[in-house]
Amino acid sequence: MSFTIEFQPTGIRLVCEEALTILDAARQAGLMLRTDCGGQGTCGKCRVQIASGDAFPISDSDRLHLSSQELTENYRLACAALAESDLKVFIPAESLLTGQVLQTAGQETLIKPDPAVRQVAISIPAPDLQHPSADFERLRTAAGNDHWMADLQALRALPRALRDHPENTHLILRGQRLQHITPSACRPLAGLAVDVGSTKLACYLIDLESGLLLAARGIPNPQIMYGEDIMARLAFALKGAPESRKLHEIVMAAIQQAAEDMCHQAGISAEQIADACLVGNTAMQHLFLDLPTASLAVSPFVPVTCDPLSVPADQINLKGMSGMQVYAPPVIAGFVGSDHLAFLLSAGFGQDERTRLGIDIGTNTEIALQKGGRVVSVSTASGPAFEGAHIRCGMRAAPGAIEHVRLLPDRTLQLDVIGEAAPTGVCGSGILDALGEMRAAGMFNRRSRLDKSHPLVKVDGDGMAYFQLSNNDSGKRSVTLSQGDIDQVLLAKGAIRAGIEVLMDHLKVTAQEIDEVLIAGAFGSYMLPEQAIRIGMLPPVALEKIRALGNAAGAGARQMLVSMTARRQAEGLARRIEYLELSLYPNFDLFFARGIQA
Amino acid sequence: MSFTIEFQPTGIRLVCEEALTILDAARQAGLMLRTDCGGQGTCGKCRVQIASGDAFPISDSDRLHLSSQELTENYRLACAALAESDLKVFIPAESLLTGQVLQTAGQETLIKPDPAVRQVAISIPAPDLQHPSADFERLRTAAGNDHWMADLQALRALPRALRDHPENTHLILRGQRLQHITPSACRPLAGLAVDVGSTKLACYLIDLESGLLLAARGIPNPQIMYGEDIMARLAFALKGAPESRKLHEIVMAAIQQAAEDMCHQAGISAEQIADACLVGNTAMQHLFLDLPTASLAVSPFVPVTCDPLSVPADQINLKGMSGMQVYAPPVIAGFVGSDHLAFLLSAGFGQDERTRLGIDIGTNTEIALQKGGRVVSVSTASGPAFEGAHIRCGMRAAPGAIEHVRLLPDRTLQLDVIGEAAPTGVCGSGILDALGEMRAAGMFNRRSRLDKSHPLVKVDGDGMAYFQLSNNDSGKRSVTLSQGDIDQVLLAKGAIRAGIEVLMDHLKVTAQEIDEVLIAGAFGSYMLPEQAIRIGMLPPVALEKIRALGNAAGAGARQMLVSMTARRQAEGLARRIEYLELSLYPNFDLFFARGIQA
Repeated sequence: MSFTIEFQPTGIRLVCEEALTILDAARQAGLMLRTDCGGQGTCGKCRVQIASGDAFPISDSDRLHLSSQELTENYRLACAALAESDLKVFIPAESLLTGQVLQTAGQETLIKPDPAVRQVAISIPAPDLQHPSADFERLRTAAGNDHWMADLQALRALPRALRDHPENTHLILRGQRLQHITPSACRPLAGLAVDVGSTKLACYLIDLESGLLLAARGIPNPQIMYGEDIMARLAFALKGAPESRKLHEIVMAAIQQAAEDMCHQAGISAEQIADACLVGNTAMQHLFLDLPTASLAVSPFVPVTCDPLSVPADQINLKGMSGMQVYAPPVIAGFVGSDHLAFLLSAGFGQDERTRLGIDIGTNTEIALQKGGRVVSVSTASGPAFEGAHIRCGMRAAPGAIEHVRLLPDRTLQLDVIGEAAPTGVCGSGILDALGEMRAAGMFNRRSRLDKSHPLVKVDGDGMAYFQLSNNDSGKRSVTLSQGDIDQVLLAKGAIRAGIEVLMDHLKVTAQEIDEVLIAGAFGSYMLPEQAIRIGMLPPVALEKIRALGNAAGAGARQMLVSMTARRQAEGLARRIEYLELSLYPNFDLFFARGIQA
Repeated sequence: MSFTIEFQPTGIRLVCEEALTILDAARQAGLMLRTDCGGQGTCGKCRVQIASGDAFPISDSDRLHLSSQELTENYRLACAALAESDLKVFIPAESLLTGQVLQTAGQETLIKPDPAVRQVAISIPAPDLQHPSADFERLRTAAGNDHWMADLQALRALPRALRDHPENTHLILRGQRLQHITPSACRPLAGLAVDVGSTKLACYLIDLESGLLLAARGIPNPQIMYGEDIMARLAFALKGAPESRKLHEIVMAAIQQAAEDMCHQAGISAEQIADACLVGNTAMQHLFLDLPTASLAVSPFVPVTCDPLSVPADQINLKGMSGMQVYAPPVIAGFVGSDHLAFLLSAGFGQDERTRLGIDIGTNTEIALQKGGRVVSVSTASGPAFEGAHIRCGMRAAPGAIEHVRLLPDRTLQLDVIGEAAPTGVCGSGILDALGEMRAAGMFNRRSRLDKSHPLVKVDGDGMAYFQLSNNDSGKRSVTLSQGDIDQVLLAKGAIRAGIEVLMDHLKVTAQEIDEVLIAGAFGSYMLPEQAIRIGMLPPVALEKIRALGNAAGAGARQMLVSMTARRQAEGLARRIEYLELSLYPNFDLFFARGIQA
């Protein structure tokens, strides 16, 4: 039995294996609903609308807090509504805890928890002269397991715990190894999953025993003050050990702070964090592990290691439960990191043999193509144009950004602006739309330059062509795209398309044969697929085959946090992924030249 | 092929498997000879006399530094003399580095090195775009071993080492795990073995690859300032965590200092110490591991764990090579520690089926009896009488101590005094002798009291009987043994004898069936076996069956340091040893009452 809950307006989908409340499902999907009462059905704040057709059962709590009209319109309290089959749920803005929404997954899978650490309660008899066995030996005997070992730290805590609570000692075990011992149950036994992005850290606090999300935080990566992009930060790290160490320390301090904030929100202690899984691109992974990055800064961009690592948390400046470990999944190559692996894991790569294309668009865009039993990955330097950088009026997706652009038949522009403010710039999806509309309106000549004779193309005082998205009549600057801006975008989309075409050429796949195109990342969630195809960033596939997954790397990190099975799957997938170096591919220049055409 | 070198005047014996210089043999036996030239044959300081009959080959160095008379008297330079068969070697005092002699083993075995860490030199190809494998992957490929893993610390050092010395990178491996990486060979690859005694720390610096001793130090255990004996220190530790921590820190600081001093003497860096093995009684082991000792201070005297542990050195405040580990062998029970196990290992217990008795005399005396495949151990609270404590004129074996006492037929006393000074007190072996001579002279009555009518028994002003060993005519106090002193000694020897008798009763062994009595510890090296039998401390066995092994625990620690085979043997032996709780043994009171009779 398996069913899917789709949340609107975000479009996040959650695949569930067993019945759960809509509140828990929303948490799991990274959507934090208001629950002043802690999900007891008494505050009435978590109201959602069941958007799929059928009438939904009405609970006592619903009757107490909702009007009869609301009930007719299928409004229900999320904490009392049990989801058991396919559902579409609309979440009103007022039911969301503001500031708590991460741009998380478009599709999540509730996986069966199978964590690296588990909790066992046992009763251990006191020793006497007839049976003067050592504390740890009596513990093993009581547990019926002769093979258990113990960390020195756990042994240090053992005598006190056994004597204070002999009847009810709680063991935290990592495999056969006693990691920690507590006088009372550690509930929840928490874990930390982090997608360490170069721009943003997506942090999740998870109940390891249920797999449910306890809290989430999306915070900026403070390394940004030492360099906007990865290469700038690697250059900074090259200056010396203190600089490199600094990059490690500030990102770990931010993660530690986020972890503590989430614990505070969830009402637990940071010492309840027993395990962690951190993913990131290869440079980020080296930085959070405090591994040297010098060889990542220059060709041939070689990592120190690609192995999965499980390291004591204190060796990377993270503090949680005594004996806590951090799992860092394998990386694939210098520019294909564990975030790519986490994305492919959460998207189900390697689990079937469908022909699937996975794309994580960023300054470096990682692309994977699966065909039959093979998965091949490339990394392409697409640049930051779709993040609004290197574009004069470009900006991140924030209030004032033009998010969508449509050229109406009367040649006027219809703009969607984030926050419904006057436009102050244009973000990635707006740029993509603009290019798509310009192309459809025939504004480019054969050399992919703006056609100055086209009525929508303007020319500035220096004779440079540009396209105007908004004028300055609201007092704000006018938002325009110059020929230079457009060149940046063409380079970006060309690099992505070239990577896709090389993979299709390498595995002998045509666009028609592709069963699914999965796009990770925030940009993927907001861009319109038809525009991506129109400007040639994506190959011509049927629109319904394209799906945005949001922060799929974060979803994969959460899976690996709560499930050893997922870790084994990821490690198996990593061994299977073939890395292809684009610059060595025959005729790559031609693929690229074709890709950048407007 | 196997031969034995016996060193005089110490009586230390070394069993060798292959030819080696007498200098190396002496080092291995814990005897540090003067070698100003480092064993090059140029300083002439390491002269020794070959005391076994045959003429010994004369080297060029011998001719250069020794007179013809010395050559005739079989004097040779130890650095140039190759030992290949059974030898007896006399070491003149002037050839010894003073202050460097440890009271080490009476018998040492040169075992085949098989250490936990090994050193491998490899050449690792540089990466290129065609082969952009990670550093650690190229290392594994170059070494032809896919299963190697690495500590995070080693990975952090990897890129620098590979790029500075790609042709000649030296790896320090612990099993399949890369512990450290160095740009040049680590020679010697050193290890630290310590017998952590409650009075003395016997420290050895060993070349792990050859098994040879590089340096040795015997230093006082500084914990003594917090309590003379174990129980006093455990009482101090009971006061709280800071006190307990203090006992850990000062003993580790002393070991660290000794390690650094030995490295200095051997001309190496402390970072060359790649491994360590520490043994001690159970309380000492808990203190050096910083494990709680509260449950060792009260009945039923339960350890936290009896398991062998391998812990990162930095977790117990020891510093050496990055990634260094410390091996702590298993302990047997609350009062039978890993020092007892190390003693039994070095004495070959568990390796054959002879009937053997092993005794380590101290404040607590641990005794083991082997019969067939069984080894049974007990611990008996013999008190500190043989260390000179609780005896009015008692003292440790130091200058001025009466070491041996003989009652001549004319009823005068012949005394051996350490340092040939006027006597200021009496040490363990002198006390033992005195009791033996008193007993032979019929000075005790049937109730084990001094017979005041005996001409050698004096009576003081309070009417208390005593025995006078020396008078005060040299200006020093007279040395006497009072009835109270004698009671202490009888309690001590009685406790030991009771332990032995219980073991013999338990395993159905008679004194005649005992093949060998092995005595560990400094006291065992100086006491006269006939006196030990005469006063009834030992059962009546043939004198030639009794052998003193000196610091056999230190010898066992050194074996476990250099050999994984020895560790496995020790762990197998530990599992086989049956601990017997004396106080629970039927009629133990009777055994004890019989034991304490004069």
